[in-house]
Amino acid sequence: MHTPLCDQLGIEFPIFAFTHCRDVVVAVSKAGGFGVLGAVGFTPEQLEIELNWIDENIGDHPYGVDIVIPNKYEGMDATDLSPEVLKKTLNDLVPQEHIDFAKKILSDHGVPVEHSDDDALQLLGWTEATATPQVEVALQHPKVTMIANALGTPPADMIKHIHDAGRVVAALCGSARQARKHADAGVDIIIAQGGEAGGHCGDVGSIVLWPEVVKEVAPIPVLAAGGIGSGQQIAAALALGTQGAWTGSQWLMVEEAENTPVQQAAYAKATSRDTVRSRSFTGKPARMLRNEWTEAWENPENPKPLGMPLQYMVSGMAVAATHKYPDESVDVAFNPVGQVVGQFTKVEKTSAVIERWVQEYLESTATLNALNEAAEA
Amino acid sequence: MHTPLCDQLGIEFPIFAFTHCRDVVVAVSKAGGFGVLGAVGFTPEQLEIELNWIDENIGDHPYGVDIVIPNKYEGMDATDLSPEVLKKTLNDLVPQEHIDFAKKILSDHGVPVEHSDDDALQLLGWTEATATPQVEVALQHPKVTMIANALGTPPADMIKHIHDAGRVVAALCGSARQARKHADAGVDIIIAQGGEAGGHCGDVGSIVLWPEVVKEVAPIPVLAAGGIGSGQQIAAALALGTQGAWTGSQWLMVEEAENTPVQQAAYAKATSRDTVRSRSFTGKPARMLRNEWTEAWENPENPKPLGMPLQYMVSGMAVAATHKYPDESVDVAFNPVGQVVGQFTKVEKTSAVIERWVQEYLESTATLNALNEAAEA
Repeated sequence: MHTPLCDQLGIEFPIFAFTHCRDVVVAVSKAGGFGVLGAVGFTPEQLEIELNWIDENIGDHPYGVDIVIPNKYEGMDATDLSPEVLKKTLNDLVPQEHIDFAKKILSDHGVPVEHSDDDALQLLGWTEATATPQVEVALQHPKVTMIANALGTPPADMIKHIHDAGRVVAALCGSARQARKHADAGVDIIIAQGGEAGGHCGDVGSIVLWPEVVKEVAPIPVLAAGGIGSGQQIAAALALGTQGAWTGSQWLMVEEAENTPVQQAAYAKATSRDTVRSRSFTGKPARMLRNEWTEAWENPENPKPLGMPLQYMVSGMAVAATHKYPDESVDVAFNPVGQVVGQFTKVEKTSAVIERWVQEYLESTATLNALNEAAEA
Repeated sequence: MHTPLCDQLGIEFPIFAFTHCRDVVVAVSKAGGFGVLGAVGFTPEQLEIELNWIDENIGDHPYGVDIVIPNKYEGMDATDLSPEVLKKTLNDLVPQEHIDFAKKILSDHGVPVEHSDDDALQLLGWTEATATPQVEVALQHPKVTMIANALGTPPADMIKHIHDAGRVVAALCGSARQARKHADAGVDIIIAQGGEAGGHCGDVGSIVLWPEVVKEVAPIPVLAAGGIGSGQQIAAALALGTQGAWTGSQWLMVEEAENTPVQQAAYAKATSRDTVRSRSFTGKPARMLRNEWTEAWENPENPKPLGMPLQYMVSGMAVAATHKYPDESVDVAFNPVGQVVGQFTKVEKTSAVIERWVQEYLESTATLNALNEAAEA
């Protein structure tokens, strides 16, 4: 599965692993793939600590950092974009009704509510104002050879800045139209993410979206995302003209991940039909396990989810509870994952996953070859 | 792309083409694929005429017939299942409010309404009672070597009856659970249809569903459906362990199809994001072009779609108008199609489509081989 992009990035396999855990980034890159750290949950100071740790442990392997700058979000027209002012501005936009409703869902499920109205509303890196300092931190680390934007086309000056630092820019898309915008803006690698995907996604399925985006932006390399958790699925992605696989769900189910045992048990139990595209955590449609939190925000009698980043300033207390009280919060936890979750039954070592995928890929392409030989015989 | 199923069915390519047009059935089978006639819109008498015509024109090639017996539908518990009584029973279940609303949508768009409350409510073959006579007709035609059920597991006695006549039974599914039911009932070929598909479909994407069903029912052969309109997509399907492709949308865009030029123009113009899974025509979620009819039935202020088969007894007047007044009904027409519609820009000859797909398949597998050779070099 060695594609031209592998040579460009100096990696063995075109397997890109999105994760929030630094240990997984290191394990994937050392196994021949390309680990990508999701930065959205880190302050610039925390991110610096994570990247230093990765640098120390990853050897000579490259890795990436994923940021989130949506093209549209609440408060983006504010004149003072300093994080503190922006946070205050946005806090004022969150209705008390939503905070009360979120607290009620948690307390109805016996989850301790520790949300303080003074300071606990979390903004995270979901704006240009908060993502820009993350990029500055990342560019100080030479092994970070790729910066990816998870939502929307990165701003022109940011693309130039990253290019000037000698790194490549990647960006996710859910439609050919968005891919065209990325290409026109100078994005180097386009990640076509089908509606099967965990986290933010559109509603066009991977089997349709991948070749559509490949055709739209050729010769810019395209990575396939959404529904990949095996070597056969990587073979399908390459058969459709992509140059590699951008994967996420699988890395929630590895030993190196920080996900709680309760969360991993929920993933192991889930079928491919147990996810839902919901706005209930981030304000934009994102795929996650369906549970009583997502159902509560779907109910038309309840408050509607707010826009990004306001909804997370409400749902953040549920996310925090997931980590602190995993047992109590099992029915209201934030479990972002794709439909491919139905394939996962156990927690594996990261290196074992990469080895399995390579082996499955080879078996899959061998099967195709045997069919061609049978046809010729 | 020659799979064991090709030998079993005596065909050259494992390309199954679902269509409502007899001309397309003939053209596909003669080009080396396997044409399948959708019977749902035909009375037994009409179906007999269609199959006779196919027999006369298809040479020695085999073909299939697709029926619709949902596992659940309104009126299925009625004691007298004779078509006439059933139709009367069901007619009584259709609220006047729904009929009036449907008429209003049409007249608001300038479409002549010719619906007569006396006899125009159409039942079609969407029940066991109406599908059984279709099967009887089909089994009188020896070249019909496969009967497929588009929704649900066929009743046990019907499976036995088809097997006793020496034909194979196929059935569509949208989940591994449904596939398991098919397998346990003795279905010979399982068609795993991803949420990208046109017509009735679930919401699990093809790239996830196909391998899931293959694993669930092995060694029963699986056909891949949902999102296939190119040879690359067939390569992806075979890489994921299926034995062929079940396709539908593409055959709306061939010269041999009876679809109106207005409808074909709508398909040519549509992108992959212009479809919607809607209950507005058949009562069960089916993918089609989004338009003012589908939007009207989505609006929570309007009547909710009825169950199957009642909703079609309401929407049938819109379908009839599509054929009779294609220009007037363009914004309210029934245009079932999958997300793959975004790939189609022109009307082709059926034989040219098959040739193109075979060529694209070979290019796609050659690309995979080149990547493997590059990795070894």
